[in-house]
Amino acid sequence: MSVSERFDTSVGPEYPRGFRAGGLNCGLKASGKPDLAMIWAEGGLRVFGAFTRNCVFAAPVQVCRERLEWGGKFRGVVANSGNANACTGEQGLCDAREMATLAERATGSEEGSFLVCSTGVIGHPLDMSLLRAGIPKLGAALVAGEKTEVPFQRAIMTTDTRPKNFGLELEFAGGRVRIAGCCKGAGMIHPDMATLLAFVTTDLELPQSFEPEFKAIVDDSFNSITVDGDTSTNDTALLFSGNGSGLSYEQLGLEEQGRFREALFSLFAELAKGIVRDGEGATKFVEFQVRQAESRAQARRLGRFVANSKLVKTAIFGNDPNWGRILSSLGSAGEKIDPAKTVIRFDDVVIFASGEPTHPPMEELRRIVGGKEFAIRIELGLGSAQADVWTCDLSYEYVKINAEYTT
Amino acid sequence: MSVSERFDTSVGPEYPRGFRAGGLNCGLKASGKPDLAMIWAEGGLRVFGAFTRNCVFAAPVQVCRERLEWGGKFRGVVANSGNANACTGEQGLCDAREMATLAERATGSEEGSFLVCSTGVIGHPLDMSLLRAGIPKLGAALVAGEKTEVPFQRAIMTTDTRPKNFGLELEFAGGRVRIAGCCKGAGMIHPDMATLLAFVTTDLELPQSFEPEFKAIVDDSFNSITVDGDTSTNDTALLFSGNGSGLSYEQLGLEEQGRFREALFSLFAELAKGIVRDGEGATKFVEFQVRQAESRAQARRLGRFVANSKLVKTAIFGNDPNWGRILSSLGSAGEKIDPAKTVIRFDDVVIFASGEPTHPPMEELRRIVGGKEFAIRIELGLGSAQADVWTCDLSYEYVKINAEYTT
Repeated sequence: MSVSERFDTSVGPEYPRGFRAGGLNCGLKASGKPDLAMIWAEGGLRVFGAFTRNCVFAAPVQVCRERLEWGGKFRGVVANSGNANACTGEQGLCDAREMATLAERATGSEEGSFLVCSTGVIGHPLDMSLLRAGIPKLGAALVAGEKTEVPFQRAIMTTDTRPKNFGLELEFAGGRVRIAGCCKGAGMIHPDMATLLAFVTTDLELPQSFEPEFKAIVDDSFNSITVDGDTSTNDTALLFSGNGSGLSYEQLGLEEQGRFREALFSLFAELAKGIVRDGEGATKFVEFQVRQAESRAQARRLGRFVANSKLVKTAIFGNDPNWGRILSSLGSAGEKIDPAKTVIRFDDVVIFASGEPTHPPMEELRRIVGGKEFAIRIELGLGSAQADVWTCDLSYEYVKINAEYTT
Repeated sequence: MSVSERFDTSVGPEYPRGFRAGGLNCGLKASGKPDLAMIWAEGGLRVFGAFTRNCVFAAPVQVCRERLEWGGKFRGVVANSGNANACTGEQGLCDAREMATLAERATGSEEGSFLVCSTGVIGHPLDMSLLRAGIPKLGAALVAGEKTEVPFQRAIMTTDTRPKNFGLELEFAGGRVRIAGCCKGAGMIHPDMATLLAFVTTDLELPQSFEPEFKAIVDDSFNSITVDGDTSTNDTALLFSGNGSGLSYEQLGLEEQGRFREALFSLFAELAKGIVRDGEGATKFVEFQVRQAESRAQARRLGRFVANSKLVKTAIFGNDPNWGRILSSLGSAGEKIDPAKTVIRFDDVVIFASGEPTHPPMEELRRIVGGKEFAIRIELGLGSAQADVWTCDLSYEYVKINAEYTT
């Protein structure tokens, strides 16, 4: 089933009932493009968060982590693009907290009920005078129910070539539930600004015990993509749960809970794939399917390692079904694999098995790797765990963009 | 001191007394370039070996490992280029053993006294008929003391643009000792063929207890370079010790032993740097100096991770002193670092300290990163361990070569 059949690509985080969202330009970006975004809910929200594992993390990430640890109900998030507020010292922390405070005041929300995200260049202090004007204006518009300059998903973009937003509605016995979300990130270009930010909202009330489900979904979506192997200082994924549907997760039947989890995962996965597909330097989208691993962690580690290999990625760019590079990369990933048990396929075509190449028809292979999207399946013969990793190729454009962009 | 002052670049593995070495073309390479090489010694040799850590390793690597484990004295090594004899199954193992046997017979050496190395394309069986003609011819020439078609170091080249060979002589109270060596590998180009092979000979008799010294020297030289982070199926470094000087390591004074170890390390380091400098896609040579780490292992791991980052490497190619990418890469390496304690320098110029950029004069930075060789020093403030890692940049040429080369 294609995305367009399952998801409504015309809606953003405001789609679930009870949420408002929007964006505008407050002047942080010299280009005059939108750079300020806000989600606000009339009622209290439960929020689940996942953040960059980078030891070097930005001030807004620290503020979000602290607030989520304290717990309690939330009312929304304010996000800016154009400046990451990273490597900005104590001043950066003060600025991030002030952004949240400005949003809370503008929307009449409780103190400490807003989260904050930033994306953009690092090492520069935020121009707070612009935010002190912009945030009250945006907050007031949301509270008044006015249409904002641009949708939320446009105002968080940096080097993204297009907004990435999806929504869907589920029908349960007790009523309808909506999920929607958007993300920014394009990995391949200007990666100093390539923070991954994702915002997902739902009007189904989720219990705190949903946390492990959320972590698993993030692992299988955003943590399953790799563009260049580097993580950003600002990566953040937030799931906001309100009660606009009048339904709670615990009220759903087991089958309904499963459908909700599956839909939520599909939405996260589609957002994650959207980031890989939006790499400007990227010419191909490749799914590495690691199968028969000892553990899920091993499968993901191997998938990420191979998907991240410069030799494998350049071969894909060159339409080269180079099993040798894939096998060699697998072998150097620090996991114990057995080449004699390993099978490598391009889509359905086996190219390596029993320790030797199988010499399938070259034209068939070339047709597969010549395509825009294909799968490389790696069967390890070690166990029954599996993982998928999504990546793109490594092109001239990648080098050009990353070499020519300067601080 | 420059290399030319310390090392004689006109000699190869035959320089230490008691060794003979040479090469010829036996027809494995369609180009007609030299592809067969041999080192042979009249007397018994002690051999120290280090091999690829890749789980996917070639047949000759397995044969070398087995023979070194069995121990005993050795007489030499036979190596071919043009075919890696990797992923060739049981037949590949038989072929590797037969290569050694052919060399033993041709030189009248004991059974099991030869080692074997291969480098070239993977997944293709060796053409043994060519080796059955070539090895006896080359062995006979060495035994007869005849000049061979080409020096050893030329016959092991694949995509190398030049041979990499160095020799030096040390004067001790008891006499003179010679060390010489050569290597092949160019990492940046046709990496399927970019096996690292290194052969070092010395006429100083070394005890078996020298093994830990050898491992440490390999770690600080060949394991301290990174071109693209992938390891080959065939990487091999061998140190051959004979007694042509009439001296043994144990006879040397403590200071003399230190000088020998230092000279041996310098030679290994120079061979390793030669591989980085010979990357055809490479336009710059960069030394990452990791200082104040908790342990040597941590320092090397961080150095390799950052040196291997696509974002850092493309920034270097673009003459961009991008401290943000370096810091962010450090943070995502899986080691606990503290940005507030971290100092980053380009040569002597501090660019990041106390958690913030220091804004040194841009023209000074551009002069440094615009050069062909410079150092990036990372002080972690965590301890007193250190490591150097040598690498090159990531250029258009790298993508071009690796995308256009097909199996």
